[in-house]
Amino acid sequence: MQNKKQYILSELAVFLNADLIGDGQCLISSIAPLDKAVSGQISFLENPKYKEYLVTTKASALILRKSDAPNVSTNILIVADPYLAYAKLTSLFVHKPSLVTGVHATVICGENCSIDPTAKIDAYCVLGNEVRIAAGVSIGSGCVLGANVSIGENSQLNANITLYNDVEIGKRVLIHGGAVLGADGFGMANDRGKWVKIHQLGSVIVGDDVEIGANTTIDRGALEDTVIASGVKLDNQIQIGHNVRIGENTAIAGCTGIAGSVVIGKNCVLAGGVGINGHIEITDGVIVTAMSGVEKSITKPGVYSSGIPAKPHITWWRILARLLQLDDFAKRLSKLEKEVCNK
Amino acid sequence: MQNKKQYILSELAVFLNADLIGDGQCLISSIAPLDKAVSGQISFLENPKYKEYLVTTKASALILRKSDAPNVSTNILIVADPYLAYAKLTSLFVHKPSLVTGVHATVICGENCSIDPTAKIDAYCVLGNEVRIAAGVSIGSGCVLGANVSIGENSQLNANITLYNDVEIGKRVLIHGGAVLGADGFGMANDRGKWVKIHQLGSVIVGDDVEIGANTTIDRGALEDTVIASGVKLDNQIQIGHNVRIGENTAIAGCTGIAGSVVIGKNCVLAGGVGINGHIEITDGVIVTAMSGVEKSITKPGVYSSGIPAKPHITWWRILARLLQLDDFAKRLSKLEKEVCNK
Amino acid sequence: MQNKKQYILSELAVFLNADLIGDGQCLISSIAPLDKAVSGQISFLENPKYKEYLVTTKASALILRKSDAPNVSTNILIVADPYLAYAKLTSLFVHKPSLVTGVHATVICGENCSIDPTAKIDAYCVLGNEVRIAAGVSIGSGCVLGANVSIGENSQLNANITLYNDVEIGKRVLIHGGAVLGADGFGMANDRGKWVKIHQLGSVIVGDDVEIGANTTIDRGALEDTVIASGVKLDNQIQIGHNVRIGENTAIAGCTGIAGSVVIGKNCVLAGGVGINGHIEITDGVIVTAMSGVEKSITKPGVYSSGIPAKPHITWWRILARLLQLDDFAKRLSKLEKEVCNK
Repeated sequence: MQNKKQYILSELAVFLNADLIGDGQCLISSIAPLDKAVSGQISFLENPKYKEYLVTTKASALILRKSDAPNVSTNILIVADPYLAYAKLTSLFVHKPSLVTGVHATVICGENCSIDPTAKIDAYCVLGNEVRIAAGVSIGSGCVLGANVSIGENSQLNANITLYNDVEIGKRVLIHGGAVLGADGFGMANDRGKWVKIHQLGSVIVGDDVEIGANTTIDRGALEDTVIASGVKLDNQIQIGHNVRIGENTAIAGCTGIAGSVVIGKNCVLAGGVGINGHIEITDGVIVTAMSGVEKSITKPGVYSSGIPAKPHITWWRILARLLQLDDFAKRLSKLEKEVCNK
Repeated sequence: MQNKKQYILSELAVFLNADLIGDGQCLISSIAPLDKAVSGQISFLENPKYKEYLVTTKASALILRKSDAPNVSTNILIVADPYLAYAKLTSLFVHKPSLVTGVHATVICGENCSIDPTAKIDAYCVLGNEVRIAAGVSIGSGCVLGANVSIGENSQLNANITLYNDVEIGKRVLIHGGAVLGADGFGMANDRGKWVKIHQLGSVIVGDDVEIGANTTIDRGALEDTVIASGVKLDNQIQIGHNVRIGENTAIAGCTGIAGSVVIGKNCVLAGGVGINGHIEITDGVIVTAMSGVEKSITKPGVYSSGIPAKPHITWWRILARLLQLDDFAKRLSKLEKEVCNK
Repeated sequence: MQNKKQYILSELAVFLNADLIGDGQCLISSIAPLDKAVSGQISFLENPKYKEYLVTTKASALILRKSDAPNVSTNILIVADPYLAYAKLTSLFVHKPSLVTGVHATVICGENCSIDPTAKIDAYCVLGNEVRIAAGVSIGSGCVLGANVSIGENSQLNANITLYNDVEIGKRVLIHGGAVLGADGFGMANDRGKWVKIHQLGSVIVGDDVEIGANTTIDRGALEDTVIASGVKLDNQIQIGHNVRIGENTAIAGCTGIAGSVVIGKNCVLAGGVGINGHIEITDGVIVTAMSGVEKSITKPGVYSSGIPAKPHITWWRILARLLQLDDFAKRLSKLEKEVCNK
């Protein structure tokens, strides 16, 4: 379906494969949260704690599970997963500025570049030799692509992105502003106190349908490549070290750092601010909660944590003091046990 | 007062509304710390632990509280808050390269842009359609502004900054190099293992007198806008998720990550490396100390912490071992209590 | 030795000052890990846990310690430190695209710049007034150098890097994409709830042989300079506050944040995600392990830690609950001790 300014509800029902209850001719021009929606907007219920708003919302239509439909007086689209339906719906309402086809006159290309005629490259981009840009690719202003970079079909780069030489990007990949892919991994050997650089001879390979957040960095491999599999979603300000391999559909939230040579499985979720120690392996289906540090390999799927929720400072200060006494506590407890038992 | 290479002390006294003791004709050409200052420099005492330097400093003048003035033999400016006075004084000594008025010939503008004739836009910036640049704005080289961006009076952007479409910046805002505002929030729904993108339909709204540090990222909202209120100060490398709202005059130090849909009050201070969990609310006047993780809403002003200060590794290793035994300790302690009481 | 596509083993033996066992005419065209190497590749053994691969590897040559040489049937280069030898060897195999000498026609220079004729500056860079670029320097596309910046001999800047005015870079420095040096330190004084900016009057001074990772930020000093000594190695996404001084050959891993006015000694190693509190001093030879927070000055060399390794969520949740009871435990333990002793 082509993006429009507004849709009739029956169009949305077809798009979402939803059951429609109410007026299919109702005009919908945008999406809004339940408590903020006004006439002409559609909303959805995902989190049960907002159920109360079902009665008071002014939305012209609601996306609901079947069980939430009774007692609602407005128009309804019934689906199995309202949040997923909302996700799909956003694609109809996103403002896509008309895609200028072609390469801006200021773009500088090296030798032997191959740029599909349907690709768009904005002003002041610089491409090295042998760069390959596939059909439907869109590259924002100020991006710098090193020699031998390749970008797959329909991928989009926003602005001021840096891809070092030999980086390979798959299809339908979305990279946000300021991201840097293919910088040298942090490798060096120590020679009597001085660091000798280990030149990084690998590259970065990114699969299809990957999203890479703003100012995220992914280093090139030392000998082999750093590999981001298809379907991986990376938030902003993430650091991925050299030789890391991330499995399909794994999602990683902002400010997470992954040290070198880590292997992460498929369908994992790393929350924000997580740190992963180098040279370890995390199996498929692992969830790591926010600000946790993973030191050793994780071989069983499940949820892992080491983050500590903040307390009032004075409470926390007292706990810290007690922490330092733990060893002493342990010894006193053992001694006491002996005394009590011996009596 | 216009910036000059040097000032006589009486000028500075007037500028700071300070009481002058000593030679008002004394020439001051720069500011320096107490222990480093030489003749021709002015210094100040903020931290009492540097009080000893009051006797030995070679500064030509000192900014002091009244109580610190006796026993000092050099020229003095007496104020209520020397640190604040120092802050104000820096504005007189900062080197401001002459502001070239006008738009560099290499700047590329979209259609219907409105650029005030007093604004300055440096080389190789690219502006989308309908961009609005107010009077006195200064934009450094290599910035990319998407369609419909607006920048308020006297705001300054350094270099290589990326503002996505529809981002609105207030007056007297200072944005440092590499910052990215308006990239997509990290939103997606899971459809049988695969991630479906939630297109981010909101934008980013920044108030007046905000400072945004180098390489900091602020994501656009999912349905509504991400809002940074007036007077907010953000350090470098901060990540602010979609839909976040930060209240007036809140200051946030470097490397802090704020997950989506967080509401932070006015006059809060988040120290460095803090993580804030998504969908929570932090009331006005909250201070969070460094490297703390805030998991739940904070409804009372005060200081909150969960950071742990580093110990010698072997000490810390022993504490960690004891931590894992805590549950066991608790049970043994209870058992022991029963035995002792029953005797 | 000039970089070639392949070398005979005896050339590599001379380059590494290694003892050669086997066929010196053997052709080597690249380096690979032990378990992945094929014919025509050289490998090395650093980590004893990969010793088993010595028998099965298909590498045409191996770099080994003397003690590992017996029982190996392929060609061998014997050295004291195989990892260091590997590091040196990478310099022979790194792909260096031919260095275009000269300044691209699109580079914009301010007044009185001094650019050595052997320096290379790529497309769309912008240099302020009085910039000084020494011999052999290479600057990638889209870099912005403020007024009075100086870059020492043979330093390399990748793309989209921002150096504010007055930043000084030494010789043989390597700066990766997206780094920002010289942005304002995070300094302000509070004036009845509003923040007054402390203009940052210092700059950033970087010594020789420093490496600075992608999207790393180093702030300019408030009154004095921020100083990065020679031989310092900084990974990606690091934040270094104003007035910080880092000693020679210290190495800092990704996502670490160093608050203002910190002094770090020589030959320190800070692992990833470390946070260093402001205004403290860390002596030479200190190692801080991953995700630790350093609150106070460290005056003795050694290893320091406060990171917590992630546990299964349910285990960790129970420990957190017990942590909050620690104060209570301590009191109950003391009480019990008194009772038992009094009996």
